[in-house]
Amino acid sequence: MGDPRGIGPEVVVKALSREDLREVCRPLILGDPVILRRTAEALGLGWKIARVEEESNRRVPDEGLGILPLSSLHPGREPTDVDPQESSRASFRYLEKAGRMALAGQVEAIATGPVSKEAITGTGIPFRGHTEFFAGLAGTKDFVMMLAGERLRVALVTTHVPLNEVSKGLKEEKIVSVIEITGRSLKKYFGFPAPRIAVAAFNPHGGEGGLFGGEESIISRAVDQARGKNLNVSGPWPADSLFHRAVQGEYDAVVCMYHDQGLIPLKLLHFDSAVNVTLGLPFIRTSVDHGVAYDIAGKGIASSRSMEEAIKTAAHMALRKREKSNEYIRIAKHEIRNKHE
Amino acid sequence: MGDPRGIGPEVVVKALSREDLREVCRPLILGDPVILRRTAEALGLGWKIARVEEESNRRVPDEGLGILPLSSLHPGREPTDVDPQESSRASFRYLEKAGRMALAGQVEAIATGPVSKEAITGTGIPFRGHTEFFAGLAGTKDFVMMLAGERLRVALVTTHVPLNEVSKGLKEEKIVSVIEITGRSLKKYFGFPAPRIAVAAFNPHGGEGGLFGGEESIISRAVDQARGKNLNVSGPWPADSLFHRAVQGEYDAVVCMYHDQGLIPLKLLHFDSAVNVTLGLPFIRTSVDHGVAYDIAGKGIASSRSMEEAIKTAAHMALRKREKSNEYIRIAKHEIRNKHE
Repeated sequence: MGDPRGIGPEVVVKALSREDLREVCRPLILGDPVILRRTAEALGLGWKIARVEEESNRRVPDEGLGILPLSSLHPGREPTDVDPQESSRASFRYLEKAGRMALAGQVEAIATGPVSKEAITGTGIPFRGHTEFFAGLAGTKDFVMMLAGERLRVALVTTHVPLNEVSKGLKEEKIVSVIEITGRSLKKYFGFPAPRIAVAAFNPHGGEGGLFGGEESIISRAVDQARGKNLNVSGPWPADSLFHRAVQGEYDAVVCMYHDQGLIPLKLLHFDSAVNVTLGLPFIRTSVDHGVAYDIAGKGIASSRSMEEAIKTAAHMALRKREKSNEYIRIAKHEIRNKHE
Repeated sequence: MGDPRGIGPEVVVKALSREDLREVCRPLILGDPVILRRTAEALGLGWKIARVEEESNRRVPDEGLGILPLSSLHPGREPTDVDPQESSRASFRYLEKAGRMALAGQVEAIATGPVSKEAITGTGIPFRGHTEFFAGLAGTKDFVMMLAGERLRVALVTTHVPLNEVSKGLKEEKIVSVIEITGRSLKKYFGFPAPRIAVAAFNPHGGEGGLFGGEESIISRAVDQARGKNLNVSGPWPADSLFHRAVQGEYDAVVCMYHDQGLIPLKLLHFDSAVNVTLGLPFIRTSVDHGVAYDIAGKGIASSRSMEEAIKTAAHMALRKREKSNEYIRIAKHEIRNKHE
């Protein structure tokens, strides 16, 4: 549900009121039932909470909309009237529960609403962000932040670091790992049997043979190494013209060296429809692409587009994963049969 | 005309065969008449060179298409059969003449075709690029590279430097100067009476209050200083969402800190229709947005879109400048009249 004081409840309720979304998944909201109900009423959506599930082994109802109540905050007139400390602690509880349920296989995917990093940290809970939190919970070190829109997918080698420090973080092994995880995930979750991955250069004009910087030689070695692992990968390509080529259909994803290199073209094409996907976790996790937006919370004007896309993407990824496992089971059965003949 | 061995002659001939282009300007090609004629014939454009002007005071013919012959190279079967050294020296001669004519007021604007920096340097002529060459010729130090498309205009604070060295090049005075030149030029040449300029941050999320880098405080001071000079300027804004806002019509131009920050969104939106404009020179100068492309020269497949836009933009800028001067003359006359009354 995201932070109860932000636009999370609103975008979740709006998104799940859509028939097309509920056709591709059985959603379970981890959140606050009173706040969700009031939000739905205020929006006049005629949207009814079909069942409220208590702790049990079977969490997701077959029909209707399930809510797993994890807080009972006292809502005020405005979302921001909710006690900030309680609200932040609750938003963290939803995440923790979601992670544990996903690890236990009780849900097939997580789509997260917006929380405030600062607000959670302010309660004394150490929290560096959703992605890092889930990775820690799963004991994973190799994870990748990917932003996906309909026309463009970008995977980031570095994320929230000063641009001036990116260069020293560009290690060959790290780049190879991002390429591998991206390739594997595109295959497993996005339906690309042989994903075509382009890797962006770091310097203008791709460094022009070392004239404008030397990071390209590291990237180049990483691309070679990844190619040796049977990945369809090329680069480093000058970044300025690369995204046009990707959007034209030449590549399925672009591996980017720094945050804005990937986010500038992505947000230009998919301003409110991009989804943040964490690759490399042992479960599927997508997220909205925006923050808590306290300033417009409760006004009914927040766009639920990104939340819808996050849920839809998570559902599609889960379906692909199922198909893949069925495929493996078929192949395995086939092999067993062959052995017995 | 650009480098005779590249796609320059082809894109110039293709562009100037368009009626709509010849309606907005009286073009004079500085180049090689034999190569231009052969190119036109090979393209079967039915395009006739109306007049070949020799050195004279009146360079641009009122009607038809003028060529000022500055070389007589021996063309081979393919453009690349032309002697590389002679070709490069000739391409430099065209530029030099263009610059001198513009400084003398014999032409109102220059639109340059592609030359090869490496090839010119290879002949022993010191040449750091078109822009630097014209700036040197004009004795100008404060010039700005702007890339302009229909939906987005970006001005660059730094250009062809390693990304890792951009940070130390971000001086307050330099940023103020780029903002000022951009504002002044948008007013003078692009018809914006009060240009709205956005300035991009350097770090992801605009540095998040110093958490991800400190360059934003320098940029911020520069924005304040420029605002004090009566410019409608704001920032630093997080770069990832800024270009969407500019394209939506919130800003007339975005001042960018590094090459790819501006070029990534620009080329994504305007892959073959963007124009490179040098601001701050004492004359109007636009350029194609691509290189010599020796690999496809003479094949007849080069897109002349960028050349067309470069010529059209130069012509429009010249018209705006004329209007502005007429306006000043009107105001001056009016003031003189008022004084005498």
